[in-house]
Amino acid sequence: MRGLLIGRFQPFHEGHQYLVDRIAEEVDEVIVAIGSAEQSHTGENPFTAGERLQMVHDVLEPVEESTYVVQVRDVDRNAVWVSHVRTLCPSFDVAYTNNPFVARLFDEEGIATRGTPLRRREEYRGTEIRRRMRAGEDWTHLVPSPVAAVVDEIDGVERLKRVAQTDDPRSSERES
Amino acid sequence: MRGLLIGRFQPFHEGHQYLVDRIAEEVDEVIVAIGSAEQSHTGENPFTAGERLQMVHDVLEPVEESTYVVQVRDVDRNAVWVSHVRTLCPSFDVAYTNNPFVARLFDEEGIATRGTPLRRREEYRGTEIRRRMRAGEDWTHLVPSPVAAVVDEIDGVERLKRVAQTDDPRSSERES
Amino acid sequence: MRGLLIGRFQPFHEGHQYLVDRIAEEVDEVIVAIGSAEQSHTGENPFTAGERLQMVHDVLEPVEESTYVVQVRDVDRNAVWVSHVRTLCPSFDVAYTNNPFVARLFDEEGIATRGTPLRRREEYRGTEIRRRMRAGEDWTHLVPSPVAAVVDEIDGVERLKRVAQTDDPRSSERES
Amino acid sequence: MRGLLIGRFQPFHEGHQYLVDRIAEEVDEVIVAIGSAEQSHTGENPFTAGERLQMVHDVLEPVEESTYVVQVRDVDRNAVWVSHVRTLCPSFDVAYTNNPFVARLFDEEGIATRGTPLRRREEYRGTEIRRRMRAGEDWTHLVPSPVAAVVDEIDGVERLKRVAQTDDPRSSERES
Amino acid sequence: MRGLLIGRFQPFHEGHQYLVDRIAEEVDEVIVAIGSAEQSHTGENPFTAGERLQMVHDVLEPVEESTYVVQVRDVDRNAVWVSHVRTLCPSFDVAYTNNPFVARLFDEEGIATRGTPLRRREEYRGTEIRRRMRAGEDWTHLVPSPVAAVVDEIDGVERLKRVAQTDDPRSSERES
Amino acid sequence: MRGLLIGRFQPFHEGHQYLVDRIAEEVDEVIVAIGSAEQSHTGENPFTAGERLQMVHDVLEPVEESTYVVQVRDVDRNAVWVSHVRTLCPSFDVAYTNNPFVARLFDEEGIATRGTPLRRREEYRGTEIRRRMRAGEDWTHLVPSPVAAVVDEIDGVERLKRVAQTDDPRSSERES
Repeated sequence: MRGLLIGRFQPFHEGHQYLVDRIAEEVDEVIVAIGSAEQSHTGENPFTAGERLQMVHDVLEPVEESTYVVQVRDVDRNAVWVSHVRTLCPSFDVAYTNNPFVARLFDEEGIATRGTPLRRREEYRGTEIRRRMRAGEDWTHLVPSPVAAVVDEIDGVERLKRVAQTDDPRSSERES
Repeated sequence: MRGLLIGRFQPFHEGHQYLVDRIAEEVDEVIVAIGSAEQSHTGENPFTAGERLQMVHDVLEPVEESTYVVQVRDVDRNAVWVSHVRTLCPSFDVAYTNNPFVARLFDEEGIATRGTPLRRREEYRGTEIRRRMRAGEDWTHLVPSPVAAVVDEIDGVERLKRVAQTDDPRSSERES
Repeated sequence: MRGLLIGRFQPFHEGHQYLVDRIAEEVDEVIVAIGSAEQSHTGENPFTAGERLQMVHDVLEPVEESTYVVQVRDVDRNAVWVSHVRTLCPSFDVAYTNNPFVARLFDEEGIATRGTPLRRREEYRGTEIRRRMRAGEDWTHLVPSPVAAVVDEIDGVERLKRVAQTDDPRSSERES
Repeated sequence: MRGLLIGRFQPFHEGHQYLVDRIAEEVDEVIVAIGSAEQSHTGENPFTAGERLQMVHDVLEPVEESTYVVQVRDVDRNAVWVSHVRTLCPSFDVAYTNNPFVARLFDEEGIATRGTPLRRREEYRGTEIRRRMRAGEDWTHLVPSPVAAVVDEIDGVERLKRVAQTDDPRSSERES
Repeated sequence: MRGLLIGRFQPFHEGHQYLVDRIAEEVDEVIVAIGSAEQSHTGENPFTAGERLQMVHDVLEPVEESTYVVQVRDVDRNAVWVSHVRTLCPSFDVAYTNNPFVARLFDEEGIATRGTPLRRREEYRGTEIRRRMRAGEDWTHLVPSPVAAVVDEIDGVERLKRVAQTDDPRSSERES
Repeated sequence: MRGLLIGRFQPFHEGHQYLVDRIAEEVDEVIVAIGSAEQSHTGENPFTAGERLQMVHDVLEPVEESTYVVQVRDVDRNAVWVSHVRTLCPSFDVAYTNNPFVARLFDEEGIATRGTPLRRREEYRGTEIRRRMRAGEDWTHLVPSPVAAVVDEIDGVERLKRVAQTDDPRSSERES
């Protein structure tokens, strides 16, 4: 039995780790799907798909043989999104999500969904971690250590600080 | 003489019905263009192009021989949008719209536009109908009965309630 | 019960008419899906989606209340194509096709398929009709009369003759 | 040595002129890249790429032999944007920008960046000029005279007034 | 009066030069549109849009004030192609082409077309020049000298030789 | 040190296995990139990205901790392809390829390339294996056993036989 977990993993943190561990207790193999794969260099999505793949790979190394990692780019059509996901993954039996919208999309395609267990939700969340990165506060204890190593290697905190200074930045060199 | 009416029809309601009837008095044939065709499963655009086609078809059955229905997906370039619409439609002589922006696009391409008569505008509008659906209030009297039947058949109110719980939902399984 | 018939209809001809009639005997409602909708002005695909919609509309007028017409643009991913088609159509129970590839795509998505009855296959085919148009031979007896009227109105034979003179024409103004 | 200046130029104004002149003192040739090329007919981006090209061309005529003008459409992937820009331009050595985000993107691809000198920043900015256009206030003294001529020729102020009346206008003919 | 000349310019050669000169005798300003702008690194389209812009710029320097250069990417829909071209260009009155297909597209949009005068057609053509480049034969006398300089600077002949060894090369690292 | 190996893997065969083993002797970590990821259900590309991911995963299980697998969709612009690949992968130092075109693309972006060792080239190639599948000949000895298991599970040989009967099949339900 295979289960799908989809997230943006910006970055992969201890809450995700906890999730993967719980799911691994329920299914034989876990597919970790990195969503919004083509987004990067923004305040919400600082890291590329390749960088996030490396994070997930380094963290999940011990359980690799029962884990698949895929990168899922957004498609601008909700009604074909589940089909899109399925073509990128090995077949799966259940999708894990707490998001009622995502659950609905899977439901309408006849795929079972289950809620995901959360842990220390106030800290273990991407928004909080990215806020700390930008504010210069401590964040490394909120992620598995291989993730902190990747962020360090790519100079990720500095990148986040700079891209987050501007809102819709590229199209408006000095506004216009 | 043919007239074009473009709308999102999320869902098709009595105001649309009234509009089509008025336009049918002025032109020989009406083209009903379902805009933002590829959008669905969001709070603003709950229904697919296929579902909306069925609504329009079922409502306009009595006048079908003088009606065309097309589905128009968005293109991210305003300056080619009119050309895009024209390739999907039989040739037409006038576009009906109260939207100054849409009118301008047609004007710049040399296509005549006319304003559309409105009726009971405070109730006959998609925003209000979707709000009622989400709030569990009565809405069926605001749409032609075939539309209510389609919404019922696809379990549309439940879908709307669920997708509207989250804002930018898909990309953020439990945030990130 | 609803059946789907997908074709390019370049142009809609007597063979298609025959097909629709046979299918209409088996199902309550027929969805006629105009494929490769965004293609036009080539030797293989001379007519726009709007022009083909008009052909189908004018021919099927007598059976309109039990007929839906949709325009399906190509998507460059076979594995999501069925999902793409489904979002544009009212729900359907069976797809009519003699094409083993198309049948396979529907099969893998769990949708039943049936073969389509052919008639006077050597003449009632788009390739032959377009060849005759280009060669200046007679072709109007091979299509329903409303189709010939549409082709005439849009000066379609002349268009076909001109676009078919060049192979990959647009990108090579006087070659390069 | 070649320098790149990227902007949206909605419209090209005296601040841009000043910028180009300063950059021309530092490099041999200047590439003026018109960003968000495919956007037009909105409150933020009223003018098409062709109209903006004409503005830039008419203004830079005296220095044309050392100037290149390119049109850069947006790509929805920050991590390939610099590569995208490079394929459209002659090779360049330095990119001029005050935008920390844009600077970061070039940095990560190993391209040097320099800040741009600003002048009378409160007036010489697109936002202010477009606000004046919409409000019927005087704006022509803020742009080089060939720009005012182009805006006049295309009836640009009237276009801006009309498209700016609606927010997300096209998709919502009379709302929905 | 403005005239449009569209070509791929792979590379810009003496035949193009001759064409531009003839057109410049008939109209006040010439728009040189570089087609298939996003194609490069293939046997048919070896040079990028940026490289071709540089060729055209360097050759047309003496007549620059009456010349515009634009880059036009392909769009996969013939019926909107003319609209696409128009949004990228200053307004124009006539399109120069010997291609009956291109002429037809402009005709249907109501834009006048004229044939282009050819000169020494057997040699002054991209196919022949690219063949010579690949075969190691002499080709520089067939292009204006600034073009030969650009090709040399970017090591273009070597690129062409290498990319032309494989047909559909990228997708098949050692076939598959 | 990381090396990239890109292929379509339709299907992954013993020649690929040999390649990965040789590369693993030269670098610390191997990135296996599944190219043309969004292609499937054709004679040349029968298997989806998800199915190919499963093949690669099952075969490389023993060396997983030093292996990354990514899915790379085609982009229709050779000049940004290397940048596209890089955003999907962890950083890498060398790309393995025997394809002169691919090598050239990497060269121009400053990335080192190395040739790949081949083995029993006449049999260990996708074309030959797919030919055998279609002809009903033996092929399982040419692929690692987990690949044969995946093909069996998805009924892959039957799919290939059916999709390969038609050339450009989808767009031409019974021709046109």
